[in-house]
Parts: sequence; structure tokens; C-alpha cells
Amino acid sequence: MKIRKNIKKQAKPITFIGLGNMGLPMAQNLINAGHQLNVYNRTAGKADALSGDFEICTSIKEACEGQEIIISMLAEDDVLYQICEGEEGLLNVMQEGAIHISMSTISPDTSRDLSEKHRHKNQHYLSSPVFGRPNAAAEAKLYICTSGEDTIKQKVKSILELLGQAVYDFGTDPGAANVVKLAGNFMIMASMETMAEAFTLAEKQGLDREQVANFFGETVFNAPIYKNYGTLIAKKQYQPVGFKSSLGFKDARLASKMALDAEMPAPLLSLVYNRLLSALAKGNNDSDWVEGIAGGVSNDAGI
Amino acid sequence: MKIRKNIKKQAKPITFIGLGNMGLPMAQNLINAGHQLNVYNRTAGKADALSGDFEICTSIKEACEGQEIIISMLAEDDVLYQICEGEEGLLNVMQEGAIHISMSTISPDTSRDLSEKHRHKNQHYLSSPVFGRPNAAAEAKLYICTSGEDTIKQKVKSILELLGQAVYDFGTDPGAANVVKLAGNFMIMASMETMAEAFTLAEKQGLDREQVANFFGETVFNAPIYKNYGTLIAKKQYQPVGFKSSLGFKDARLASKMALDAEMPAPLLSLVYNRLLSALAKGNNDSDWVEGIAGGVSNDAGI
Amino acid sequence: MKIRKNIKKQAKPITFIGLGNMGLPMAQNLINAGHQLNVYNRTAGKADALSGDFEICTSIKEACEGQEIIISMLAEDDVLYQICEGEEGLLNVMQEGAIHISMSTISPDTSRDLSEKHRHKNQHYLSSPVFGRPNAAAEAKLYICTSGEDTIKQKVKSILELLGQAVYDFGTDPGAANVVKLAGNFMIMASMETMAEAFTLAEKQGLDREQVANFFGETVFNAPIYKNYGTLIAKKQYQPVGFKSSLGFKDARLASKMALDAEMPAPLLSLVYNRLLSALAKGNNDSDWVEGIAGGVSNDAGI
Amino acid sequence: MKIRKNIKKQAKPITFIGLGNMGLPMAQNLINAGHQLNVYNRTAGKADALSGDFEICTSIKEACEGQEIIISMLAEDDVLYQICEGEEGLLNVMQEGAIHISMSTISPDTSRDLSEKHRHKNQHYLSSPVFGRPNAAAEAKLYICTSGEDTIKQKVKSILELLGQAVYDFGTDPGAANVVKLAGNFMIMASMETMAEAFTLAEKQGLDREQVANFFGETVFNAPIYKNYGTLIAKKQYQPVGFKSSLGFKDARLASKMALDAEMPAPLLSLVYNRLLSALAKGNNDSDWVEGIAGGVSNDAGI
Repeated sequence: MKIRKNIKKQAKPITFIGLGNMGLPMAQNLINAGHQLNVYNRTAGKADALSGDFEICTSIKEACEGQEIIISMLAEDDVLYQICEGEEGLLNVMQEGAIHISMSTISPDTSRDLSEKHRHKNQHYLSSPVFGRPNAAAEAKLYICTSGEDTIKQKVKSILELLGQAVYDFGTDPGAANVVKLAGNFMIMASMETMAEAFTLAEKQGLDREQVANFFGETVFNAPIYKNYGTLIAKKQYQPVGFKSSLGFKDARLASKMALDAEMPAPLLSLVYNRLLSALAKGNNDSDWVEGIAGGVSNDAGI
Repeated sequence: MKIRKNIKKQAKPITFIGLGNMGLPMAQNLINAGHQLNVYNRTAGKADALSGDFEICTSIKEACEGQEIIISMLAEDDVLYQICEGEEGLLNVMQEGAIHISMSTISPDTSRDLSEKHRHKNQHYLSSPVFGRPNAAAEAKLYICTSGEDTIKQKVKSILELLGQAVYDFGTDPGAANVVKLAGNFMIMASMETMAEAFTLAEKQGLDREQVANFFGETVFNAPIYKNYGTLIAKKQYQPVGFKSSLGFKDARLASKMALDAEMPAPLLSLVYNRLLSALAKGNNDSDWVEGIAGGVSNDAGI
Repeated sequence: MKIRKNIKKQAKPITFIGLGNMGLPMAQNLINAGHQLNVYNRTAGKADALSGDFEICTSIKEACEGQEIIISMLAEDDVLYQICEGEEGLLNVMQEGAIHISMSTISPDTSRDLSEKHRHKNQHYLSSPVFGRPNAAAEAKLYICTSGEDTIKQKVKSILELLGQAVYDFGTDPGAANVVKLAGNFMIMASMETMAEAFTLAEKQGLDREQVANFFGETVFNAPIYKNYGTLIAKKQYQPVGFKSSLGFKDARLASKMALDAEMPAPLLSLVYNRLLSALAKGNNDSDWVEGIAGGVSNDAGI
Repeated sequence: MKIRKNIKKQAKPITFIGLGNMGLPMAQNLINAGHQLNVYNRTAGKADALSGDFEICTSIKEACEGQEIIISMLAEDDVLYQICEGEEGLLNVMQEGAIHISMSTISPDTSRDLSEKHRHKNQHYLSSPVFGRPNAAAEAKLYICTSGEDTIKQKVKSILELLGQAVYDFGTDPGAANVVKLAGNFMIMASMETMAEAFTLAEKQGLDREQVANFFGETVFNAPIYKNYGTLIAKKQYQPVGFKSSLGFKDARLASKMALDAEMPAPLLSLVYNRLLSALAKGNNDSDWVEGIAGGVSNDAGI
């Protein structure tokens, strides 16, 4: 089944796999820029939110036939492996010379492994994880980290630039960009713990959390992470859910695995790992990760 | 002994106590703005670095006689108490109605106590701790937090504005501004631990620390704290010493005391507290606090 | 007011100050052994539970007049200081040459300070903290740690032996015995955290907590601490309250202060400190310390 | 190659795989009790230390032919899997109805998986991990934990009793005994951290570590773990190596995995995990785990 929704003059066609909170606005930006898209999502119906020139494919094979560029944006390592392996997986159905741009938040070892497997099939793999929440994806304000073959980076540069405000490269190790992404998500979680402890301490000393958060967000900590999460933490505003505790924990788990492989004791990483594992243990998998962390700090403090 | 160095038309005279790394450039900014200064420092000779219209006083009594505004900028609670108490202390020698602007990093309880003691003497106490390192003090780029009597804040507003780029007020509890200052220093130490763990993890995974630090400093963590300390931590550049581990630990200790009083378990605070206590245990009191924290992370990781 | 309850042939008279859960059975053991006791407690009425030859005194002065041996068994440093200082305090009312046997769980610095103050009055101070819960006190099964002047230890040896099953000496530093006591209470709290994590892990893996606790208590961990607390932790049996979370936290706090003074980072101590501080933050000051610790582990694990 | 070293009247023959520090004395005890042993070790030559009636086999197949009882005592999950899987692995070469007594310290999931695999081959698997160091193995003083099929436990009861002083059963889940073993090793590591912090604190307060260790080992902590490890920790005696830091870390890692699977935040487990990971990061894989933990505490304390 192919549903041609629209026909207009096109840039290079692209296959886009994974239409979740992040993938959907990213795919839309590519369509808006004139690329004809083959889209595939395991759960059907997600593509209904797209508009413009795209085809909904019902199998990976159908989505990849004759395509040179395949982008994947999925929830975790296991899902990516399911998409890549098996008779109808990317490794089997991508043509020789085609490029798999892998934008999911996954472990560096998964990237290293898949890169090798694509190479054996004379295909290319480019790690390209991103920083930014869905609204940043919609505004093409993502920060994109890349690592892998340099010639491939050149070939897809213009496509990546449609998705983000800047592309940072970290060399030829396919896992490198994933290291940066996971290190960054650890830093975000650590910042949440930092703010939650600081604001709770201030609250218990009689101060107003929001006033304290505003001060830091406007002065020495005037970075987006501190401004945005700072406001949520100060207000204890955990709705709507932007990023689930279960996904945050997944990243803490991947970072811990990475630290284990690198023989790197990381007590602050252990702290946020346990914070979110506690959220999961309490059944709050679907809570926002801000609640998973900051709610834990409040709970310990009896407020 | 009074040494009149210069005579010119003056703004309101001010007494300035404490000519350390921070106090010296702050005092100079007041002189530059036309205020005649009485300066006092326990260790003589520090005032030699000042230029302009000021008098070097050899006792607190001499420094405060007839003065309406007294600023103190000292190393810790104990030193401030020594300056305030005793027969020749501020509480005894300040005239009625005079204002003590207390800018040191001290515990909220010390501020609450001294505020009360000044009140009993019909004097005024204003908590005014600052954020910024000596170069920010020299450029009058400090962020100043205040708390205490509102009428007093109005009276000294123009003076504080000569010392910093912005003044943030936290209400009438004299301890409130100190809570913010200590919470902020905790946040800075926690950020160092965060970066040190993230960069060390990246290094042990084969990446370049500086490249990683630059990426974060330019994107999601583009705040001064992450840019400036991030570069030092990435480069493992611990010289020259900007702020000693012993002073960092003092702040971790005061924050821990504040958390104890507020019945607030703060595991990340405990982590950085132990990090710096280890630096002290190893005899590295005079190392930069960046080394105290980031050096500890490296050491644990065997690099 | 003196109430002579009973008259019989006596061993050396003793003054006993502090008739709480521990002090009461200890005092009774001394009476049973033939010592005539002067007892004093800040809250009246506690002595009603005693039987035998004793006098209830209504002031410390009255309790100490003409006495050579004074034993104190109080809740904390502050209370001991209140008993010792002031016009009617021990330091003022004890006769020259009299001995103060200080059995409370207090900080080593308090012992060092009081020892010095007694010495200035030509009195003697012997640190003699104990290990054991009230039932061990009743059975004279306490373990008693001493430190201080060796000649004094000899003089009171036979009295201490009436209260415990063994006396261990730690030299002449008056604070040494208190270091051992606080280190021991830290070890007990750490053991509770250890068991709580182990048993909870076993439970969440589908095992029976009690069976696991019994196994360890009968084999590699067959010490009283593991047997007794192990059963309580396995059964989540937190009633009746044997030792309050607030008192446990007091000891964690004193141990932390001791670690600070010794420049000793102690992350496990920080962990149990925060565990109990959380219990206090939640208003559970009067819960058993077993609940304070093990209940926290369960709560974090969502059970 | 079969080398018949001795012939005498025999109990039931047994195959013993894994002649390391633990396996060797255990095998010897079985020989001493009259069992004819087929022994196999991946590295040849280990069997030379045995005496009595045994045959050295050069393949697992040879070792298992016609045998009803196979005991494995190996270093870790991976090694056990290598022994079990593949064309010449236990699963393929054991006869129907034969029993695999698995005594290694491995994860519960490995036991659950292998139990299932043996069942599919109509073979039996019994989890039987042990507590005790090599000297306890030599004296048949091990504590043995079992879980799995009850009928199998009855069949091998008399054999297990030759190896240890007591057998404790934990039901039919094949993973249960491994949960207990890993929980126990966590408890031992946590006890080392506990003692190391307590003794270091005492040392830095001026006390003698050994005197403190002796006191606790004779009184409230009079369990083998505290007596034996307590002496080593007090003396900082880390030679000869009894159990390597790398193996201790393996157990901390397995316990952490078990906690992850059970959704159980365990901060003390994280603490000892990081302690030993630091030892590995510093290249001290072959140090005793006592040094890995207690040496880390000393190092942090600057002594």
C-alpha cells in the first residue's frame, strides 16, 4: 500500500523511520524543505499528523527500496536492532552505498556494532544523535552530534542542517557522538538533581523556590537547561510529560554501562540512576523525568 | 595613623573592612566612583594596592568613627564575628543608625544573629553576599543578593550598584540572601562534579575532553559557569588558584549545616562535601576547588 | 526533700543522674548490688520504677553532696552540659577528688572539654559509654568502653563491672571511648542499611526476607547485631520503639562532626546520615531507627 | 588421555569441573570421602595438586561420559556458559537424567536460563553456590545454598554435606540461591566499607585501629566476617591475595544487574561498586578486594 498524498518538485528523496514525538516534527521539516519522504512507523497511524509530500510505507523493505538516505529516530537500542536485523531489516534491504543516519539515543557500542555490520554490506552508518525536546525539533533548533565516516558527513550535511541549528562533529569513531549524547543527558539529569536540592533547601529555609530559580537562571546559570528545567522544578510542575522517567532511566542505564566499559566510577551518575530507578520502582515510569528526579528530592525532604 | 592619600570632591564616605582578593577591587570601585574610603584589614599592607582617596585605619574603631556606611567582605563566619564582637568590635563602635553591609559568604544563622545584635544597638545590618570571582569584582560585574530591612536597601542601593551588574532582593529575613549564596556555591560545585564525571567518561571512551566541553558550553549548557569552569576542567588546568579548596569546603560545610537545620537530606551536597574534604585530608587545602573536585574524579578513574 | 525508701548494709554510695530507658535499669543493678544511690532526674517521677535503697534528690547539688562517685547517663551533649555547668552544676557542686563517670553517648570533644574542666576543679572525669539496648542494661550485659585517667579506672572498675559483661579500655584520651561508641553506632546503622538493601533485593527477586535473614544470622553474619536487627528488618517489625530515629540521627550527626574534625570523607556515613535525616524531615522522629533506615530503603524500592 | 592414579573401593563417581582456588580443595574432599572423580580444568596442570583416586580428563565430553553427577565451580557466568554450550558442552554431552550441580557465583538469570536448557535435554540443574574462602573449602566448612528441583536436592544431599558444614535451601526457583549468594557478597563488601570507614575515623581521631577492630570483633560484631576481615582491614594487611578485586567487582556488577532487573535502588551497593571499579580503573585488578575497598577509604582520607 502506498498513499501518494501530494506531488511537487522534490529535493533528494529520504526514508524516515520512527514517527514518535521527535521523529514526527523532524520528518515534517524535511518535507517542508522539499524532500519527498518514505515514512515508516511500527505502529500505524502516526503519519496522519504529517502534511505534504510523503508516502506511508507498510514495511521497511518498501520504505527503503531504491533509497540512498535512510534516517532512523527510535526509542532505544532494542528497537533499532529490530529495525536493522532480520530478513526484512535495514541491513538486508538497504541498497549498496546507501546511508543510514542513526539519530536515536543509543549506546556507543550499538553504533559501533551497527556501523560494522553496515560496512560488511557495503552500506554506510552515520551516528547523529540530537539534543532538544519536541518543540526544538519542530523549530529545527536541535543540536546534532555526528561521528563516523567523514565523506558521508559531507554528503548528508545539508539534510542535517534542515533539522537543527548546528552540527558538531566528534570524529570517526561511530560511537563517539553517542558518548556525547549520553554524557549530555547525564549532565541534564545531574543539573536537575542540583537544582532540586538547591531549591528544596531554599524552600525549607523559608525562601520562594521560583524567585531563587529565576535568579540563577538570569545570572550564573543562564543556560536553557537551567532556565527551562529550573522553572519546572521550582514550580513542581510535572505536567504535561515531555520526557518520561523510563526514558531518562534508560539513558542513565546506558551511561552507566558506558562508564562500566570505560572503568569509570561515577558517583553522581549512580545517584541520578538510583533516583530514576526509584521512580520506576514506584510505578512512575510514565511521569516526566523532572518529576522522577525532583519529586524524589522533595519526597526525601518530607515536602 | 591616618594617611590621607588624595583629596577631591567626595560622595558619601564609606568604611570598607576586608581587603582580600574580592574586597580590594570592590573597594577600588567605590573610590573610583568618588567615595572617600576608610579601609581596614587585619593584616596590614593590603591597602597598598589601592589608589585614590582613602585612609588606612589601624583599628575598627578608628575606621568607623562618624561613619554611616560600613561594608565588610571577609573570609568566613568566625572572622566576621571577631570583627563584630568585643570591646572594639563593630557592634560597639558603630554609631546609632549606621548600616553594616555584610557581603561575606557566611551562614544564614550568622546573618540572623548579627542582624538581631545590630538591632539591639539601634544599628542596621544588610545581608549582601555576591556571586563572581575577583575579575568580575574588578569589572563591577558581580551579582549581589540582598535581604533585610527594606528601607535600608533603598538607602544603599546606589552604592551596591557601583559594585555589581545587578542586585536581586530576597525579602526581609536577614539570612535569606546567604541561603541563596550558599545554595549557589553548592550548585557551582555540583556543576563541577557533573562536568568532571562527564568529561572523564568521554575521555575514557576515547574522546577529546576539550571538544566535549566546548560543545556543551556553546549549546545546552551555555552559561558562564559551564563555559569558564568547563574549560578549566577539560584542560585539567588548575593554576593559577582562583578559589581555594579550603574555601570551597567551607561553603559545602555551611550548606550542609543549613541543610541539617532545615532537615533536608541532600545526597549530592554530601558528595561534593566529601570530594573537597578528601582534598583537605590529602593536604591540598590551597589547591583550586576545581582541582579539589575534578582532580578527585580523575584520581578515582585512574587517570 | 529526701525520701529514704529502705535501709540496709551498703557498698560505697553512688550518685546516679539520668533515669531514662538506659539509666533506670543500670541504677537498679547498682542498688541490687548493695550500693546506696542518690538519684536525680530532670523530669520527676522516673525513680518510682526503682526499688531498694535509694534517695530521690531534687537538685544536683543535693545529689552530689559528700559523694565520691557520680554517674551520668543522659540523652545528648547539650543535656550533659546543662547538668555540668551553671551555679548548681556538677562542676560546681562535686567535691574535690570526686569522680564523674560519664556514660552518655556524646561527642569526643565534649568529653575532652569536660575532662579538662573537671581537672581544673581537682575533680575527675571518666568516659564510659556503653553498647547495648535497655534489656542488655537490665541484664548487666552491656559492653563498656573507657578512656581517661588510669588510676580512676582502677577505682571504679568494680562498679562498672556491675553494669556490663566486659570493660574495654582505650587509653588516656578522654575522647577515645566516645570515638569508639560513635564509630560503633555508625557501624550498626551501616549494618541496617546493608541488611535492608540485601533483604529488599532478595524480596524483589522473589525470596522470603525472613529466610534470607535467618540464613545470614546463622552463618557468616552470626553476630548479635545481625541476628537481632536482622529479624526486625526482615519482618519490617518497627514496634515497639527501642531507639528513636532522632537519637540515631544525633549519633550520625556526632559521627559526621567527628569525621569533619578528623578530615575524613565517609560516604557510607553520609548515606545513613541522610537516611535518618529524611526520617526526621518526614516527621518520624519518634519512629525506631530501624524503621528510619530500613523503611527508607523499602520506600525507595516502592514496597 | 586418562591417568588412573589410584584404585580403591568407591562411592558414586563424580565429575568435577573447575580446579581453581575453591574447586581444588572441594574436589579433594570428595576424593577423600571415597568418591572416584573425573576432573576437568580448562588450564591443564591444576589437578597435579590432587591426591587419591581421580582421573584427569582432557575434554568435558570425556569427563561426563556415563556420569550421573557433574559439579561445576568456575569463575564467572561467561566461563560457565562456555563449559555448558557448544557441541562439546555439558548440555550436549551429559546423559539424560544426569545432574549438574552448579556451585559458581553467577547471576540468578544465568541459573534460570541454564536450568531451563538442561530441562529441555532431560537433564537436571541444581544451583548450589557457597560461602567461604579456600581454607573453609579445605576444611569442608562451607555454607551451601541450594535452589531448584526438590527431588534432586535429596539425591545429592550427601555429596553436598561432604563439602560444607550446612546446606540451606531456598526453594524451587533455580535463581534463588544465586540471589542469596550475591546478596551475601554485597553484604560482605558493605561490611568492609563499614569497617574501613569506622577504623579510619578512629585512626584519624588518634586511636589504634587494631584495638578498635578487636573490640568490635569480640563484642557486638562477633561474626566471622567482622573478625577475619576486621583484622585485615585494621592492619591494612592486603597480602596474600585471597579474593581479587576484579572478582569482587564482578559480584558487585552482578548484584547491580540483579537490582536493576528487580527495580531496586541500592545506594550502598552503588558505593561499593564504585569503590571496586576505581580499583580496577587504577589497574589494581589483582589486588585483594579488601585492599580494593579499604585501600580506597584510606586513600580518600589521605593516609
